[in-house]
Amino acid sequence: MKKVGVVLAGCGVFDGSEIHEAVLTLLFLSEVQAEAQVFAPDKKQLQVINHATQQETTESRNVLVESARIARGNAMPLEKLDMAVLDAVIFPGGFGAAKNLCSFAIDGPDSVIDPAVARVIREAHRQEKPIGAMCIAPVLVALAFKETTVRPRLSVGSDQEVHSVLKAWRANTVCAGVTDVVVDEKNKIVTTPAYMLGQNIAEVAAGIEKLVQEVLRLA
Amino acid sequence: MKKVGVVLAGCGVFDGSEIHEAVLTLLFLSEVQAEAQVFAPDKKQLQVINHATQQETTESRNVLVESARIARGNAMPLEKLDMAVLDAVIFPGGFGAAKNLCSFAIDGPDSVIDPAVARVIREAHRQEKPIGAMCIAPVLVALAFKETTVRPRLSVGSDQEVHSVLKAWRANTVCAGVTDVVVDEKNKIVTTPAYMLGQNIAEVAAGIEKLVQEVLRLA
Repeated sequence: MKKVGVVLAGCGVFDGSEIHEAVLTLLFLSEVQAEAQVFAPDKKQLQVINHATQQETTESRNVLVESARIARGNAMPLEKLDMAVLDAVIFPGGFGAAKNLCSFAIDGPDSVIDPAVARVIREAHRQEKPIGAMCIAPVLVALAFKETTVRPRLSVGSDQEVHSVLKAWRANTVCAGVTDVVVDEKNKIVTTPAYMLGQNIAEVAAGIEKLVQEVLRLA
Repeated sequence: MKKVGVVLAGCGVFDGSEIHEAVLTLLFLSEVQAEAQVFAPDKKQLQVINHATQQETTESRNVLVESARIARGNAMPLEKLDMAVLDAVIFPGGFGAAKNLCSFAIDGPDSVIDPAVARVIREAHRQEKPIGAMCIAPVLVALAFKETTVRPRLSVGSDQEVHSVLKAWRANTVCAGVTDVVVDEKNKIVTTPAYMLGQNIAEVAAGIEKLVQEVLRLA
C-alpha cells in the first residue's frame, strides 16, 4: 500500500486549501487503496476571509487546526513530515498555498517559501519520490528549486503574469487543459490546473484523478 | 438541466457539515450536469470545535459564512430556498446537521428542528420532489414529519439509540450498508449511512453516488 503525504494550507479557497481539490485528492487516493496522511504548518493563517462576502475579517485562525477540518481531525504538523516513510507528496491548491505555504499572493516575483515546504519538496526530489501539485501550488515547486539546478516542467493555468514569474525562477511552464496533467518524468513532478481553469467540480475532478494516477505510477 | 438545493450546516464534521459528504454530493451532481445551489441558515453555529484536538473553543462562527467555504463563496441563506424552482433537495451529514439544523446532538428524543429546515422538507414532500439525506441528516427528515401522517423509511447507520428515537417519531428505520441507499419510493426520500458507517472516503463516495443517482431518477 502506497503512502502519500497531502499538504494542506487551511480550509477554504480564499484563505486556505481549495476544499474540493483537497477532498478529491483524498478520494482518488482512497479509491486505489493508497493511504493518505494530511499535514499542514502549525502556524497562524495570513488572513481569514469571510467566504460569503470575500471580505477579510479580524479573526485569527491556525493553518493546521483549520486543515484538520478537511482531514476529519487527522492532520499532523508539517514539521513531522518525513519523506523517508512516504512514497509521494501532493499539494492541493487554493489561495492558502500562495498565502500560508509561500508569500506569492502578496510578493509575486519576490515570494518567500515556508522553509518546511521547501524542505519537503527538495527531500522528495532528492529521494526520487513523485511530487504532485495542482492549481496555484506548482508555484511552490518552482520556488523550492529556484536556486538549484533543477528546472521543473509545470502547469500553472493560463495567467501570463504567473507564467512570467515562474520562468524568471527558471521553471518551464506549460499551458495544459483543466482535465490534463503535465508530467515532468525526469523530476517526477505532476501538475494540473484544477480551479486555475476549471469551471465546475467535475472538470477539476478529471484532472485531479489523472494527477493521482500519474503520481502513483511514478512512486 | 435538473436544479438541486444542497443544504449545508457549516464546514467541518464536528461542528458543521461533513466536508467530504458535501463535496462528493456536489461532485456527483456536477458529473451528471445537474446544477447545485448551496443553502445554509444565516445564524450562529451551536459550537466551534477545534478539529485537531476535538475540544470546543470560545470562538463564534456563522453557519452560512462557514458553509460558503465549501461552496467557493456561492451559498445562499436557507430562507431564500424556494422548492418551486428546485427539482430536489439534498442534506449532507456531519454533526452540524444535528447541532445547527436541529438539536438532536443535545436533546435526542426531545429534539427541535430549525423551522426553515422543516419548511423545506415538508414543501419538497408536498410538491412530490425528492429529498436526499445522508449520515445523521435523515434525523431531520424524521423530525420534519414527526407530527404528520407521513412515515418515512430511512437509513441511519447501526446505532440502536438513534433507531429507537426515530421509531418513537414514527419513522421506519433500516440498517443499510455504507455503499447502499434506502429508497422510500412513495415519499421520494433517499438515504445512505455515509460516515455513520464508512471507514474511508471511497466507501462513502460509493453510497453518495447512488444517492445522487436515485434522487435525480425520482426528480
